Amino acid sequence: MAAPPLCLSFPDVEAAYGRISPHVHRTPVLTNSHLVSLSSRSNVLFKCEAFQRTGSFKFRGATNAVLCAKEACPELPAVVTHSSGNHAQALALAAGMQGVKAHIVMPDTAPRTKLEAVRDTYKAAVTLVPASERQSAADKKLAEIPGSEFVHPSEDPRVIAGQGTVCMELMEQTEEQLGAGSKLDVVIIPVGGGGLASGNSVALRGKWGRDVKIVLAEPAIVDDAKRSFDAGELVKNGPEKSVGDGLNTQLGPNTFPVIKANVDDIYTVTEDDILRNTRLVWERMKVLIEPSAGVGVAVLLSDAFKAKYPPAQFPNVGVILCGGNVDVVDVAAKMAKLP
Amino acid sequence: MAAPPLCLSFPDVEAAYGRISPHVHRTPVLTNSHLVSLSSRSNVLFKCEAFQRTGSFKFRGATNAVLCAKEACPELPAVVTHSSGNHAQALALAAGMQGVKAHIVMPDTAPRTKLEAVRDTYKAAVTLVPASERQSAADKKLAEIPGSEFVHPSEDPRVIAGQGTVCMELMEQTEEQLGAGSKLDVVIIPVGGGGLASGNSVALRGKWGRDVKIVLAEPAIVDDAKRSFDAGELVKNGPEKSVGDGLNTQLGPNTFPVIKANVDDIYTVTEDDILRNTRLVWERMKVLIEPSAGVGVAVLLSDAFKAKYPPAQFPNVGVILCGGNVDVVDVAAKMAKLP
Repeated sequence: MAAPPLCLSFPDVEAAYGRISPHVHRTPVLTNSHLVSLSSRSNVLFKCEAFQRTGSFKFRGATNAVLCAKEACPELPAVVTHSSGNHAQALALAAGMQGVKAHIVMPDTAPRTKLEAVRDTYKAAVTLVPASERQSAADKKLAEIPGSEFVHPSEDPRVIAGQGTVCMELMEQTEEQLGAGSKLDVVIIPVGGGGLASGNSVALRGKWGRDVKIVLAEPAIVDDAKRSFDAGELVKNGPEKSVGDGLNTQLGPNTFPVIKANVDDIYTVTEDDILRNTRLVWERMKVLIEPSAGVGVAVLLSDAFKAKYPPAQFPNVGVILCGGNVDVVDVAAKMAKLP
Repeated sequence: MAAPPLCLSFPDVEAAYGRISPHVHRTPVLTNSHLVSLSSRSNVLFKCEAFQRTGSFKFRGATNAVLCAKEACPELPAVVTHSSGNHAQALALAAGMQGVKAHIVMPDTAPRTKLEAVRDTYKAAVTLVPASERQSAADKKLAEIPGSEFVHPSEDPRVIAGQGTVCMELMEQTEEQLGAGSKLDVVIIPVGGGGLASGNSVALRGKWGRDVKIVLAEPAIVDDAKRSFDAGELVKNGPEKSVGDGLNTQLGPNTFPVIKANVDDIYTVTEDDILRNTRLVWERMKVLIEPSAGVGVAVLLSDAFKAKYPPAQFPNVGVILCGGNVDVVDVAAKMAKLP
């Protein structure tokens, strides 16, 4: 039996790139001699999505979804989602910039700072409900506003295509920094819901084919992607939560098949590794990444990754630093307790 | 009686700019919509010296001093300084990159991380002595190595000229970002020993003349610059120390006359203001500045500055974020205790 078709292909990412470029930041690619030295590679390019609007790559997918929905229906009245994290802020601003109302359902346990960002800074309408009622609350809002559209944080193919523009830029910036025709040997991408991972795997395969290894990075205590990849079918996370809070989510029926088709390896890292490597980036690169982004750096510097992808054969590595939305004081207090 | 000539003039800064540009990073100028909104200005350009080699602007002055010394004496055997801070790391790397040995006298109370950076990362020879013996230890080292040169962190005119290249870049980047012929109405510069402030005041006056206001920013508890400026003569700091530890230093006989000649105003800010504004930059701009750099942001957003330099008449402001060398965990613990 032939596998069902994937939910997106390379032309979708290319189209998203053209569509959203006027609205998103082309984020810088930085490097750091100390981290390069620790990695034993020739070059490590860090794609800094912490500097993206709303502080994470999520603004790309949200912008693509809103623009696609408006192309299909110029009178689009509203977009709706449920999220307590980076997607909420991203969709709020993306919609606002296109003159579309955003309705965000948030759990009533969401931190005050995130609620304020979505409601006050980005001017979305917020509905607070118990976490168990978030889908029904979103459905109710969709029913109330005829023509409004639901934008899922990671499963929406328009969102996935938008996230893939991170590597569309990174591939261009690799040539700018390492010379025309240069490619990266490996790109490391954090995985949570899988929107970033799947979209960028399509971008990388579409432009660089099999010349690049695609490696995902995941917290060990929420390793559904690793276990699903190994089992060949979707498995669920347990109740534990990682300090890499952007990654406390599940692959889904759209993202998992794309990842299965394109990704070479998935590595997991401990909570202590995440905190240590997040701090390393803070203090050495001076970029305030969130711990979700530290997960990729932890893989880069792990013995397991170096053993399978030796620096001599894989001298040039890219790492996506996915976001920078973090309560510094809270996370620094956790760092202070590291052994 | 005519005032004695200043220790440097604009051609010295221009020469330094040409001399050091191949060796230093042209640091990015970033902005942030939230901070612009809080400032009520049209544009705020943040010059990010946290991304400079060794994590601060100090690398510029150190590089200029080493290159000048080598021009005068190609066989220069060594440079010597005493510093526990950013100048130590900067001179260590600047000398190493030019094949010159660096001898750094550090107080035996210096934090382990700073000692390791200077000795292990940047490969300088370190002499640890009680703080009271640092000058005599440096003099001893200079006597031991014939032809070696002392490089003072802020009083050396070669260092001052090198620091002035921050604004040489910023003035070009202002035109790149705001359009050809654009100028900033005000530039805010943190002041400690005064090397950054005096060098950049010469750069700004040399190229933009009196079209730009030059405002210095200083912690209130180490306000020797403010009090010296008001008194017209050098006065000393008391024993208190600021969390903006790069600014716990004194103006000297070389920097003060330059500042007196060029600067329009000096504003002081409280320790709580410094911590609050440092955190604001961390969490909004995602740049891990040190508290010394937060001092300038605190002035930008202060009522006193807004009152004297109203946004309507002074719409475009530049702020020098001077460095990013900070123990995040330690400073975040102080932030957690803010009222």
